[in-house]
Amino acid sequence: MSFELVSLRLQVRPNDLDSLGHVNNATVLEYLETGRWDWLKHHNLQIKQKIVPVVARIEVNYRKVIILEDVIINTKLEAANKTSLYQANFWQSIEIFKEGNPLVAVEARIQLVFIDSTERTLRTLQEFLAASNNSNSIN
Amino acid sequence: MSFELVSLRLQVRPNDLDSLGHVNNATVLEYLETGRWDWLKHHNLQIKQKIVPVVARIEVNYRKVIILEDVIINTKLEAANKTSLYQANFWQSIEIFKEGNPLVAVEARIQLVFIDSTERTLRTLQEFLAASNNSNSIN
Amino acid sequence: MSFELVSLRLQVRPNDLDSLGHVNNATVLEYLETGRWDWLKHHNLQIKQKIVPVVARIEVNYRKVIILEDVIINTKLEAANKTSLYQANFWQSIEIFKEGNPLVAVEARIQLVFIDSTERTLRTLQEFLAASNNSNSIN
Amino acid sequence: MSFELVSLRLQVRPNDLDSLGHVNNATVLEYLETGRWDWLKHHNLQIKQKIVPVVARIEVNYRKVIILEDVIINTKLEAANKTSLYQANFWQSIEIFKEGNPLVAVEARIQLVFIDSTERTLRTLQEFLAASNNSNSIN
Repeated sequence: MSFELVSLRLQVRPNDLDSLGHVNNATVLEYLETGRWDWLKHHNLQIKQKIVPVVARIEVNYRKVIILEDVIINTKLEAANKTSLYQANFWQSIEIFKEGNPLVAVEARIQLVFIDSTERTLRTLQEFLAASNNSNSIN
Repeated sequence: MSFELVSLRLQVRPNDLDSLGHVNNATVLEYLETGRWDWLKHHNLQIKQKIVPVVARIEVNYRKVIILEDVIINTKLEAANKTSLYQANFWQSIEIFKEGNPLVAVEARIQLVFIDSTERTLRTLQEFLAASNNSNSIN
Repeated sequence: MSFELVSLRLQVRPNDLDSLGHVNNATVLEYLETGRWDWLKHHNLQIKQKIVPVVARIEVNYRKVIILEDVIINTKLEAANKTSLYQANFWQSIEIFKEGNPLVAVEARIQLVFIDSTERTLRTLQEFLAASNNSNSIN
Repeated sequence: MSFELVSLRLQVRPNDLDSLGHVNNATVLEYLETGRWDWLKHHNLQIKQKIVPVVARIEVNYRKVIILEDVIINTKLEAANKTSLYQANFWQSIEIFKEGNPLVAVEARIQLVFIDSTERTLRTLQEFLAASNNSNSIN
């Protein structure tokens, strides 16, 4: 199983800005979530409400301000190790452009766990992937 | 200089909920920001647009889901050390109530830096506090 | 069947403000939605995902700016007439306080229709009320 | 003076969706605001914080649900008449695509007034346009 890094170009909206004209720190999490949805779509995975990913922990470093211009969101699943059987760790970054050159504005690590929404129990990453794979599914 | 822990009761709004009826992970950052504003107000500090606090890093642990019920946001400035002359570290938590008993739903560490909004330079926590102290100000 | 006007005190959050320090026009709709949820709760009605209310039309007059202070949201179901068998019309207002005196900052009319979420068909206000009444329900 | 209709393709984000997977009615106002910013940019107008447009009234008809797919936002300044010397009326629509064909999901009328942010007085549309025209400005 191998998943490549996925990059999404995203429009910044006027409503995302705070009083200084910068994207608010909470809105940055919405951008990262949009990046993860795009990552799922790119890998042909679909959330089917049976096993759902839930954010368990985030670490975000805000390095540069984001203004009203398109950004690039990079999303990558980190290599699993034995401790992460029941979790997935994503590395994400948001890039802005300064005179045409990309600059990392935000760098983040997101830890997800997988919940069976009917039984309310933890599931493994493998079970989530199996349940979400569009190729194997009639839905 | 000593700042006590400040607790704020906050209303959860229907628009804060995701498709499972839980408060979204990005919205949790808005709650924490509301808690820090309340902390400032409680300590008679006011952001005057000269020296503004900017979020540099967040770490958030999501332990329990938050539903459509009031929550308590606790905000505390951590003791400064020599490395944090140019930053402030807040510890924050969000409590929910399960059959009347408080439960920690979210625990977070927020690192702030202080920017002179006209000169675009870093300032110390002390300079921010001096500039924001209502008691010394006509504004 | 008679439904009284319901008033809710709501906290304004820092994240609700635009660059001028005023509550954004889109956020005002979130306040109104919060008011309608409170209206439902006050009248012991609960949305059960079978028949759901959907906003079909809004008219909002923005008369005064709302700043970072509590507001009052008033919500009232307008008397039904024969044209409104398949819709409900709410009148809502948001009040702010100027030197202790209430002032109407926002006045709105909201038209709702009721959709059967499984059959995707229109339902009447009466059917929604019957399906949502907590007193008649085990759920 | 003539201003043409401007169309913007906008990405819908996962966070815009409510519990039924549809774009929330308040979020639709953010889309419309994004469309009006794009209209300003297209016509080489820039908000310079001296004379600012403020939403005075909105009328929105929600005709179709919007799901997690790109939409088109159309924005058009309606012909001024003598009553609108101190206001501007925008007609806006949001289009979705059903099997490749555009469908109007939202239709709206937005009334703006223009406020001198220092003097707190009403200004005319002409004064706003003169103050915001990039071609005449060094800024």
